[in-house]
Amino acid sequence: MSAVAETDGRRRRGAIARSAALAAAVDLGSREGLEALTIGRLADATAMSKSGLFAHFGSKQSLQLATVARARDTFVAEVVVHAIAADARERLDHLLEAWMSYMERDVFPGGCFFMAASAEWDAREGPVRDAVVEAMTDWLAFLAQTVEDAGLASGDATGQLVFELNAVGVAANWEYQLYGRRDVFARARASFARVLGDAR
Amino acid sequence: MSAVAETDGRRRRGAIARSAALAAAVDLGSREGLEALTIGRLADATAMSKSGLFAHFGSKQSLQLATVARARDTFVAEVVVHAIAADARERLDHLLEAWMSYMERDVFPGGCFFMAASAEWDAREGPVRDAVVEAMTDWLAFLAQTVEDAGLASGDATGQLVFELNAVGVAANWEYQLYGRRDVFARARASFARVLGDAR
Repeated sequence: MSAVAETDGRRRRGAIARSAALAAAVDLGSREGLEALTIGRLADATAMSKSGLFAHFGSKQSLQLATVARARDTFVAEVVVHAIAADARERLDHLLEAWMSYMERDVFPGGCFFMAASAEWDAREGPVRDAVVEAMTDWLAFLAQTVEDAGLASGDATGQLVFELNAVGVAANWEYQLYGRRDVFARARASFARVLGDAR
Repeated sequence: MSAVAETDGRRRRGAIARSAALAAAVDLGSREGLEALTIGRLADATAMSKSGLFAHFGSKQSLQLATVARARDTFVAEVVVHAIAADARERLDHLLEAWMSYMERDVFPGGCFFMAASAEWDAREGPVRDAVVEAMTDWLAFLAQTVEDAGLASGDATGQLVFELNAVGVAANWEYQLYGRRDVFARARASFARVLGDAR
């Protein structure tokens, strides 16, 4: 029985260490890019041993994929859940406000993890690119569903509205990361209001 | 006299070789990022010698800065001149159409050089970042001037309109690079028409 308890304790400590390493990996990935995220770089940043990190992740690509998955979990927890928790007609307003708040609060220190990752990986091939594209496709599909739930558009008009709403967020992140000016979020909120006002 | 002619000929050939190398550097920079643009990588891509490229550029950073300057020249020639050549009231329409056409015609094979460079360099410091930020600041200022020349806005309303127009282009580039779907340009043109329609 005590051997089992010891094994459980080791497993739990291992899971905690892996989780802490992934949190640092997401921060590094948002600041320096996913390509620069090697096991060696993560060891430097966390003071964990390279051999320990290899035991957790196995390879650079597995580390990159685990980092994308963790960043998705964070985005869902910080943005998507606020929409899901709201009434269908208010869901879109909650989603857009949670999205801006997530950028404004610097949830990822280098700005939106996925904007950085999609710009970095759009011209590459392989599983990491596929994971980034899948995350972006799921985001655009969720935004489309939320627009339709709000009764604001259907069919091709949904695609146009999703493009315009997504554009505001993409540009807010771009300008905030480049200049560090927080007044960009007031511009973004005014743009959302105008786009939705036209649609209503 | 023939020694002078020979020196002139050598200079001219040198200038042509440097210019050809820069054209390749801009293409590489737009596809793989400016950080990956080393003299060694450029030598591989152009079959020019590393020592020859070192003689032209001196260092990785000088190469990066020369590449940013060349990309600016290209953007001005492909986009900005179309606005300058037009009547003041039509200048904005010409500018936005030339901007979309520049993306659609894949002037840079990895998409807009400056969108890629600004996403890559926003969290860094130094002369390359400064050159990228200066190019973006000049672009936003030119867009603002063009909006005011069109009599569409002034003061703070100019800033809002510039944010919204720039957002459409940033997002069109983002979505086109990620998915390769050309229908994004129809979306972008419809967005410009709506934004300008609201402003007129």
